[in-house]
Amino acid sequence: MLAALAGGVGAARFLRGLVGVTDPSELVVVVNTADDDVFHGLHVSPDLDSVVYTLAGAAEPTRGWGLAGETFRCLEGLERYGNPTWFRLGDRDLATHLYRTERLRAGAPLSAVTAEVARAWGLQPRIVPMTDDRVSTVVTVRGPDGPVDLAMQEWFVRERAEPPVVAVRFDGAAAARPAPGVLEAIEAAGTIVVCPSNPVISIGPILAVPGVREALARRREHVVAVSPIIAGAPVKGPADRLMAPLGIEVSCVGVASAYRDICGALVLDAADRHRASEVESLGLHAVVAETLMTDDRVAATLARDTLAAVA
Amino acid sequence: MLAALAGGVGAARFLRGLVGVTDPSELVVVVNTADDDVFHGLHVSPDLDSVVYTLAGAAEPTRGWGLAGETFRCLEGLERYGNPTWFRLGDRDLATHLYRTERLRAGAPLSAVTAEVARAWGLQPRIVPMTDDRVSTVVTVRGPDGPVDLAMQEWFVRERAEPPVVAVRFDGAAAARPAPGVLEAIEAAGTIVVCPSNPVISIGPILAVPGVREALARRREHVVAVSPIIAGAPVKGPADRLMAPLGIEVSCVGVASAYRDICGALVLDAADRHRASEVESLGLHAVVAETLMTDDRVAATLARDTLAAVA
Repeated sequence: MLAALAGGVGAARFLRGLVGVTDPSELVVVVNTADDDVFHGLHVSPDLDSVVYTLAGAAEPTRGWGLAGETFRCLEGLERYGNPTWFRLGDRDLATHLYRTERLRAGAPLSAVTAEVARAWGLQPRIVPMTDDRVSTVVTVRGPDGPVDLAMQEWFVRERAEPPVVAVRFDGAAAARPAPGVLEAIEAAGTIVVCPSNPVISIGPILAVPGVREALARRREHVVAVSPIIAGAPVKGPADRLMAPLGIEVSCVGVASAYRDICGALVLDAADRHRASEVESLGLHAVVAETLMTDDRVAATLARDTLAAVA
Repeated sequence: MLAALAGGVGAARFLRGLVGVTDPSELVVVVNTADDDVFHGLHVSPDLDSVVYTLAGAAEPTRGWGLAGETFRCLEGLERYGNPTWFRLGDRDLATHLYRTERLRAGAPLSAVTAEVARAWGLQPRIVPMTDDRVSTVVTVRGPDGPVDLAMQEWFVRERAEPPVVAVRFDGAAAARPAPGVLEAIEAAGTIVVCPSNPVISIGPILAVPGVREALARRREHVVAVSPIIAGAPVKGPADRLMAPLGIEVSCVGVASAYRDICGALVLDAADRHRASEVESLGLHAVVAETLMTDDRVAATLARDTLAAVA
């Protein structure tokens, strides 16, 4: 069995490669849900959906979110009623949120609903939310009149990640329990991969669920992370604007320092090979690979290199 | 002030004519909500939406439901999750149901939400649901193993109005209160029009809300109905399959008998002029007019004739 911790699009692209080089039915993907939010009364799980849609081959290939060939007719309709529409929900995508919301209201846990959604898309890997409880990433930014708390999507999408970050916290995390299968997967997996996701707001919330960090630390020699930072910049997303204010260097070395207690190895990009010794000095085995996943073939090679790092 | 009792498409087309010949801001439309149902977790009010969309000039012109130029991408997406999709909800239409559902969940009464929706579509008439309480039309049909209860939309849309009707009831009606403004409009209106809607399942539920029938009876000489039956058949919808089993003749005379306690006049089609004396013998003033509303011009003439009947 193989386990993976995943955020959104970067993780999803890596997972596309991973299922090409391993038995997908042996893979358990633990996904961040602290970006989940409610729009128009619907429960939206951006990272779960990015992983499911991407693994299903249905994701929009370049944008980094949503389904390919989407329309936005319903959202246009919601403008009439004055609903905020900065969070773009496509018409087909809405079906997922409607289904999820109705099932959650009926009392089904998110993990059960996620399994149903993954099955509906014909996925072989098991997709598991980090928790069935509500955890919310809150980004505190510097406002004109002092610090302001924003929900993750407000900061990232509505405000385009522009307001300077002062702090990040995960409301509800301390009381959350790992979803069924999360700790079991970490304990039983031959290898655990921390996907190339934002260490602060994608992997950070998963680690904040009580028991997860400890479980990973116990399996440290079997845990390998892929750096989402190449040559001092994130491939996609706002990692730089989140890591620096929290005192984490925006580099593979910063990623290594954030993961040093839970990872035995770090895969870093060839562009960062000169920093491998710094990663090693933090106690992580450094593996140099091509990490910019321009297509599924590169992602598959990266997945193979990643698995080899802790083989 | 002018009041109207309305069901779905037939009423909506009549109201299009009515707003052309009167001051629309003086019109209060009381709409049936016993066809309301929940699909995919969303509160759908078919008659309210037909009235709003039609008065806004946004309704699909021939189909009898929904918005013009609709797409059904979300519904197609819901098929993947095994949701029943026989009730066709368009992508733009879904925006209305999302908005309504979210507002109702937040505690707003349906009458307040309906006013907001009508305002969003720029309507001048006041659109009022018959009640803010939940009333549900239940159609009991003859099944292979005895009587079966179906929700209105199940019988009408899913089963295409085919199962033979044994009985109709309005669950919740006895405990329902008229929405704010309903009784006031009936009491204050110079004229009250019962639109050409199904007398059993469109107007019937409105009359079943305690206080409404009594209020209309007190204003009987100012109440005029338009027969939805022309030459023994409904213009649209299943009125014939509902009236006959309940012992109401499928004709303008049957309509007159159903309304005799609340209406002082009935507008019947020129094709039924030979039955005018039978209507008169039931105590209703019979007015012959062209009632098949092939366009807004015909509807406006019909509206003028209708108002003149009790002037």
